[in-house]
Amino acid sequence: MSLTEDTIAALATPMGYGAISIIRVSGEISIIAVDTIFTGKVKLNKAKSHTVHYGNIFDSDEMIDDVLVSIFRAPNSYTGEDSVEISTHGNPLITNKILELLTRNNIRLAEPGEFTKRAFLNNRLDLSQAEAVADVISSHTEASLRGARNQLNGLLSRKVDDLRALLLNVSSFVELELDFAEEDLKFIEKSELIKRIDNIQAEIDSLLKTYSFGRTMRDGVNVALVGIPNVGKSSLLNYILKESRAIVSEIPGTTRDIIREEVSIDGILFKLYDTAGIRFSEDLIELEGIYRSRDAVKNADLVLYINDVEQEFDQTLYEEILILNNKKNILTVLNKIDKGYNGATNYDISLSSLTGEGIVGLLNKMKDHALVNSNFSEKTVVVSNLRHYQCLSRTNENLINARDSAMKNMSGEFVSIDLRNAINCLGEIIGEVTSEDILNNIFTKFCIGK
Amino acid sequence: MSLTEDTIAALATPMGYGAISIIRVSGEISIIAVDTIFTGKVKLNKAKSHTVHYGNIFDSDEMIDDVLVSIFRAPNSYTGEDSVEISTHGNPLITNKILELLTRNNIRLAEPGEFTKRAFLNNRLDLSQAEAVADVISSHTEASLRGARNQLNGLLSRKVDDLRALLLNVSSFVELELDFAEEDLKFIEKSELIKRIDNIQAEIDSLLKTYSFGRTMRDGVNVALVGIPNVGKSSLLNYILKESRAIVSEIPGTTRDIIREEVSIDGILFKLYDTAGIRFSEDLIELEGIYRSRDAVKNADLVLYINDVEQEFDQTLYEEILILNNKKNILTVLNKIDKGYNGATNYDISLSSLTGEGIVGLLNKMKDHALVNSNFSEKTVVVSNLRHYQCLSRTNENLINARDSAMKNMSGEFVSIDLRNAINCLGEIIGEVTSEDILNNIFTKFCIGK
Repeated sequence: MSLTEDTIAALATPMGYGAISIIRVSGEISIIAVDTIFTGKVKLNKAKSHTVHYGNIFDSDEMIDDVLVSIFRAPNSYTGEDSVEISTHGNPLITNKILELLTRNNIRLAEPGEFTKRAFLNNRLDLSQAEAVADVISSHTEASLRGARNQLNGLLSRKVDDLRALLLNVSSFVELELDFAEEDLKFIEKSELIKRIDNIQAEIDSLLKTYSFGRTMRDGVNVALVGIPNVGKSSLLNYILKESRAIVSEIPGTTRDIIREEVSIDGILFKLYDTAGIRFSEDLIELEGIYRSRDAVKNADLVLYINDVEQEFDQTLYEEILILNNKKNILTVLNKIDKGYNGATNYDISLSSLTGEGIVGLLNKMKDHALVNSNFSEKTVVVSNLRHYQCLSRTNENLINARDSAMKNMSGEFVSIDLRNAINCLGEIIGEVTSEDILNNIFTKFCIGK
Repeated sequence: MSLTEDTIAALATPMGYGAISIIRVSGEISIIAVDTIFTGKVKLNKAKSHTVHYGNIFDSDEMIDDVLVSIFRAPNSYTGEDSVEISTHGNPLITNKILELLTRNNIRLAEPGEFTKRAFLNNRLDLSQAEAVADVISSHTEASLRGARNQLNGLLSRKVDDLRALLLNVSSFVELELDFAEEDLKFIEKSELIKRIDNIQAEIDSLLKTYSFGRTMRDGVNVALVGIPNVGKSSLLNYILKESRAIVSEIPGTTRDIIREEVSIDGILFKLYDTAGIRFSEDLIELEGIYRSRDAVKNADLVLYINDVEQEFDQTLYEEILILNNKKNILTVLNKIDKGYNGATNYDISLSSLTGEGIVGLLNKMKDHALVNSNFSEKTVVVSNLRHYQCLSRTNENLINARDSAMKNMSGEFVSIDLRNAINCLGEIIGEVTSEDILNNIFTKFCIGK
């Protein structure tokens, strides 16, 4: 492939100051190019694969850093190509300088995801595994990490491979009949054909059903906190943040904007949107902040409708939310029960964000919501990627067509084309069938250096 | 040493999400401990030094990540001990989990600088080199990095070693005379003794003289921008930030607070303090903000006293600054010359932070200020560390005493004691003579994982 002719380099560790940074180089000239700027006991060109060498990086006669260089020879490397990893002191001035030296030696800077793209093109990973690499890196909770790891380990790939093999088998009978059409030979009974299609379709259906759960595990649950002013939305938000292990505060790089906070409850990510100031009156509807709050409610997987013991239940607002929220998932929350319980019974949860009473109950209900329809064991194949979901949906559409054609006793050619399309749709998941567009779309979302 | 009995582990790459993170493990059980959580083609315990092994990290039967493990066997490692580096996917959930698994296998988390401390204790580096490691990592400009690299390469160590050898030689003659005191033998003439002491002292003096420059290269130049309100301090600051390559904006982890900006001008770091709102009137003196501004002026290596063409030169404020600034280094700057030049001649620089006229002249004067007394080539030994400066100063005090005693024909014992003290002071620089206090003080300033 022309793509893999260049030799590429990139910083592979997070940008910043630290003990160690790693520069990764991959491609045909990687070892000899690093050799030209490296001085050590041995020439890297003579070094065996999977060996580490201490030495110095020079820019002409100026010593830039003392480094450890690891050598990986094709095909036994991440990319499947000759590769080098340079371990430097963790200072951007040093890593930038070394990358500059490499680019002077016919190496170019890597694009996002280019190392993993090469790993895919060189059959080190299939496409769904390659996609999982990005998810493994960016997972912010245990649950999403576990899902991504399972996918990287090939759990989904093997399932797709199995289904593809079953379909290829069915398809081969249909195609044999076409080849011997003039002899009018029967290789598979119509009832058997339909039974097999039905079985495969049932398996794909159950995969499709894991998507909602898979998406929740991967991307988290969007929760909007809604209510009239002063019912304690922000204090409730703060209490939840304190009560659950707040993951954002510890880890740089996680999103923290004005209205969104992220918490992990038993390994599940919840993104909490404080829609402070939301009002649904017409005259305010144009304000951007209101739009943003409305979007938060609209896109929420779960809305917490908050009121306090001193306010009447605002039925109009409640119904506006019901109209706005696509999923109609609303938990009604009565706050400030420390001020005396007003006997209201039409709430899902009663709590106090002052004393903490009832908060654990809320967290459990939120968790239950995330895990609804999630009767899966850890080893269940879970679909969490929209692209995979779409490929599976299209597979099923083709199977429905194939089944219809068979039922209607249409020509085997129709059945055959639909089966072939279904096989290709499955193949797209693992990258047996791909276009440059699909690949670019996938790998540009990666970070540099992976 | 008891210090190196434990096996230690730490994240060695910057915290955050990225392609690769490295966990570093060092100590006697490092290889067998990693072996217990690692499954690969070979047992790590059987692996040769400087080899890399692909495999999986397991927590019981849960696979945590697929990793590359590099093995380094004592004494051929950074610390001089058996060491392991685990290269994982760059996700804090993964690295934290692996560190947790290691701590369950009799490994403890490393303290800041503990790997480098072990490298020093195991004679892989001397103390001034070990100190340079932290400077190499934290250098924010080319100039400071080069100085730190030179020190890590042993430029200062060799110079100190040479001076120490000379002193030991002188001292040995004096001590021989003491040993043979009863025979009244002469091993060195008094004039020769004094000449040698003078020569060594001259060399130490020239080292001490490099400190101001070395400190500037390492820590940068503190510049305070001072002036009455509305003369354009902030717009000048912004123009300088734009004109020079602003290093802070690109690199996470550099300091950016309300009043300080950092710029690199030809590789030299300038820390610019905008003392907006500074007034020297008595009644405001208690306000914290004013204190901070006053401190900025007080500690500045250079004060830019800024006025504009529409204002009279404020002689009182100027004199207050002169009293306040320890170093009396003030550049007077006339701003807004785009509004017409008022013919004032008592300014060092005239410029416009609107059109940019004169700004380059200002940057050059700032650079000249930083490089004053810096007639050094790249290979000159430069002292940039306060501890080294203090050790050298004490060396010189002892040499002065030794010389005095010799001049006054005092007993050789006095000369000998002073020479011995001088030798010890030099030895402190490279760690020939150290206390646990000194070591702790040095290494606690390191980052974790180094």
